[in-house]
Amino acid sequence: MAVYTEVTDEALETYLAGYDLGRVLSFKGIAEGVENSNYLLRAEGGQFILTLYEKRVQESDLPFFVGLMEHLATRGVVCPQPVRAKNGEALGRLAGRAAAIVTFLDGVWLRRPQAHHCGQVGEALARMHEAGADFALSRVNALDINGWPPLVAAAAPRADEVAPGLKDEMTRELAALQAIWPSGLPGGVIHADLFPDNVFFLGDRLSGLIDFYFACNDSFAYDLSVCLNAWCFEPDGQFNVSKGMAMIHGYEKRRPLHLAEVEALPILARGSALRFMLTRLVDWLNVPPGAKVTPKNPLEYLTKMRFHQRVVSARDYGRLT
Amino acid sequence: MAVYTEVTDEALETYLAGYDLGRVLSFKGIAEGVENSNYLLRAEGGQFILTLYEKRVQESDLPFFVGLMEHLATRGVVCPQPVRAKNGEALGRLAGRAAAIVTFLDGVWLRRPQAHHCGQVGEALARMHEAGADFALSRVNALDINGWPPLVAAAAPRADEVAPGLKDEMTRELAALQAIWPSGLPGGVIHADLFPDNVFFLGDRLSGLIDFYFACNDSFAYDLSVCLNAWCFEPDGQFNVSKGMAMIHGYEKRRPLHLAEVEALPILARGSALRFMLTRLVDWLNVPPGAKVTPKNPLEYLTKMRFHQRVVSARDYGRLT
Repeated sequence: MAVYTEVTDEALETYLAGYDLGRVLSFKGIAEGVENSNYLLRAEGGQFILTLYEKRVQESDLPFFVGLMEHLATRGVVCPQPVRAKNGEALGRLAGRAAAIVTFLDGVWLRRPQAHHCGQVGEALARMHEAGADFALSRVNALDINGWPPLVAAAAPRADEVAPGLKDEMTRELAALQAIWPSGLPGGVIHADLFPDNVFFLGDRLSGLIDFYFACNDSFAYDLSVCLNAWCFEPDGQFNVSKGMAMIHGYEKRRPLHLAEVEALPILARGSALRFMLTRLVDWLNVPPGAKVTPKNPLEYLTKMRFHQRVVSARDYGRLT
Repeated sequence: MAVYTEVTDEALETYLAGYDLGRVLSFKGIAEGVENSNYLLRAEGGQFILTLYEKRVQESDLPFFVGLMEHLATRGVVCPQPVRAKNGEALGRLAGRAAAIVTFLDGVWLRRPQAHHCGQVGEALARMHEAGADFALSRVNALDINGWPPLVAAAAPRADEVAPGLKDEMTRELAALQAIWPSGLPGGVIHADLFPDNVFFLGDRLSGLIDFYFACNDSFAYDLSVCLNAWCFEPDGQFNVSKGMAMIHGYEKRRPLHLAEVEALPILARGSALRFMLTRLVDWLNVPPGAKVTPKNPLEYLTKMRFHQRVVSARDYGRLT
């Protein structure tokens, strides 16, 4: 939950004077998202989300994110659309932060997704990968394998407070992955954070994707591995093969995986598990006093990482060969 | 900000099956309110707030709150209206909590209210006092002067951690107020918590009141003193006489104060300042780990209490005699 930055009445009024949205009818902080401050904005012109970009988001990346949402929409991927101000800009400044207004997307994120939902997510992910193919901008994945050593270094001194032996285990895993990390896999624009709270459903049908603020260029199969981690484990830590099968099958309905991708999947899944374990661990060890966000448990991803270490092939995820 | 209780997809679906609201279009936690969990619910039937009542709200009080909102609306006070389920009930159970759905009220709460807003608030308060006159139910003010000794006792052992000497100061103030606390003032249903975040404006016009979960029976002038404390001090701790004058004048446009109320106002204002200082202090000393709510600073109300101790008469609040 996340409202980090308060917006004064005057600042909001001044900001919205730059838009053609009519009078403000409602302005409420939303308790979702952990990176930015999000407000529900109702105006005579409709219902919108106003986002203030907080410190984790680099302002220089915003044209990529905003442009990507516009690009994907024209290719049929339903996602929030940036609203342009009268001056033609989609990005402005409010309360000392970069800010944007995007359209409000109907839909509910699933607290307990089922296998058939995972299938739709896999298919939507592949559609996004296809739709991003001709997007002109690119962005390096700041949290790819080259971004993990600083996280390991930052968390190492206190990692064992979270779990005994964690410092050694993550250090070894990083070294192991550096030795075997695949290169040259098919890639392009990926979402990189397609967790359940970023996928909306209306009834049982996937209705849209949100939160493209980790989107970047990287391998497609890595993005799929992020989704396997985020969607296909049960709360008790067990991998649900039915969900994995549905996810991969859904993906391959749109975009069949190359053999190299299939073979790399267990390594990629170890990597993406380590990536989320590391960022959660760093957050866990750095909760500021008075924090409004409950940090997510890094150990959930340690369990997932260990599972993938034992995986022999993508068959263990439910892929039929 | 407040979402304490997560609602699963299945639980929401089951709950809403009892209502005639159509399909769910959106369900988002709202980062406002500190007592309950609030969700923005968009459905085919409209836009609503779904509230889960958390531990501070006694379930036996809910019929009073819900009935009051319905009663006030029929008397022209704009406030959220409980939506009745198919079975005719306005109260249900969801995720192990008592729950209600109320209509969504357009409007924005003011981060920096001005004197003319205070005038409208005073008038709206008086209208609410009038409108509640023939409400059939009643509720004791659990946080009236009889409710303060347990708060003093709870906070005393660690009060000096927050401000040196605070334990003695609040103990003395409680005893002083007990000796001079007025009785027999005109009273009825009061809001008891009409802070800026509970009053909505559309443009510069007051558009509605929300959050009746402290409403109770007590003296009207006490309610006015709560508003003087909540609206008429500047961020630097100074009382703004223009705001106080506007607030009292607005109130008296609808309901002129009796002489006894005017004379009691400084004592009531000391009392309401002590009341909010005490509840904030107890909260401050009891922030649970991982709390999603930043506790409000109790010292803000200590400053206000000291101001009222020095007040000679209601003229110091801007009331013209």
